[in-house]
Amino acid sequence: MLDFWFDFASTYSYPAAMRMAPLAATAGVTVRFRPFLLGPIFKAQGWDTSPFNLYPAKGRYMWRDLERLCADLRLPFHQPETFPQPSLLAARVALVGLAERWGEDFCCAVFRAEFGEAARIDDIATIARLLTPFDAAPDDVLAQAQSEQIKTRLRDETQTAQQLGIFGAPTFVTADGELFWGSDRLEQALAWAARTDQKR
Amino acid sequence: MLDFWFDFASTYSYPAAMRMAPLAATAGVTVRFRPFLLGPIFKAQGWDTSPFNLYPAKGRYMWRDLERLCADLRLPFHQPETFPQPSLLAARVALVGLAERWGEDFCCAVFRAEFGEAARIDDIATIARLLTPFDAAPDDVLAQAQSEQIKTRLRDETQTAQQLGIFGAPTFVTADGELFWGSDRLEQALAWAARTDQKR
Repeated sequence: MLDFWFDFASTYSYPAAMRMAPLAATAGVTVRFRPFLLGPIFKAQGWDTSPFNLYPAKGRYMWRDLERLCADLRLPFHQPETFPQPSLLAARVALVGLAERWGEDFCCAVFRAEFGEAARIDDIATIARLLTPFDAAPDDVLAQAQSEQIKTRLRDETQTAQQLGIFGAPTFVTADGELFWGSDRLEQALAWAARTDQKR
Repeated sequence: MLDFWFDFASTYSYPAAMRMAPLAATAGVTVRFRPFLLGPIFKAQGWDTSPFNLYPAKGRYMWRDLERLCADLRLPFHQPETFPQPSLLAARVALVGLAERWGEDFCCAVFRAEFGEAARIDDIATIARLLTPFDAAPDDVLAQAQSEQIKTRLRDETQTAQQLGIFGAPTFVTADGELFWGSDRLEQALAWAARTDQKR
């Protein structure tokens, strides 16, 4: 079992999400998608935006690196005009979907729209469009996403992420509490999770 | 051709240095070791120490991650008491050695002492000990390392690194100006360098 902690605003969470299903299947590991918000965690570190904006050399590098990674993985890539995008709405909708059957596919669709098509994921019309392939009525889903239950759930998840020592996304956490940070660490995290599962 | 930019204070430069020779040989790429100082670059970003010290959650993660990486690579690991260590002396001595034949082996020896044995690399006795396997008189080398020529050389290299857009270490830079940051990116950087070499 592996927890996949991510923020929809996070660039490297895009390749991580798209690589997840086949790699997890090969490793024989069950993965839980756990969207959370990096904003409060960054704020606690004294940052009011992404470090990729605070440190321009790092930001320039990240966009080029992501472009190269997407080319290698044959993933569409189109740098969005706004970064980071507010990910609150997408995260709440994802929590609704993850309690049903379409959550993981919706998460991948959000990432593909955001970093593959440069779409605005804080736009309710985009989210409604991304919901159409699924057996879910967009209006109902969006209403549920704004319920107190889901709002509280996302706040709790974010707090749990912080308590686990998560400081960036994506982060993979195994059942025995090992953290692996970054899409690069996905294979290593799955291997660790597979070993841990065998021991239990 | 690939330039391997590193700072002896940088933790992830340790596995990068130790992995370099066999991977570069397999890729058929000539690598230049280019020590520089991250301090002035961090200072320009407003940091007076390593981000691993400024952000404790990130620092805790890094040490655990490095320990796991070293275990996988069968590299000795022993967390030094002081981090980051002043790397000025080691970098100057390395520049002397890299103009001769023992530079790369000396660099690996410094990293192994620092992160494999928790030795102080700013201690002149440690550096003299690490020089003994080589055909180099430690006293002469240490005198050369403090020459104006070497001091200027290290300052120039650091400035070049900053101009290339380098913001952390290790960073690999290809002949056509592609940056790859982090030991994780070594294989990708070597593959890029091999393709670039073929085109020229």
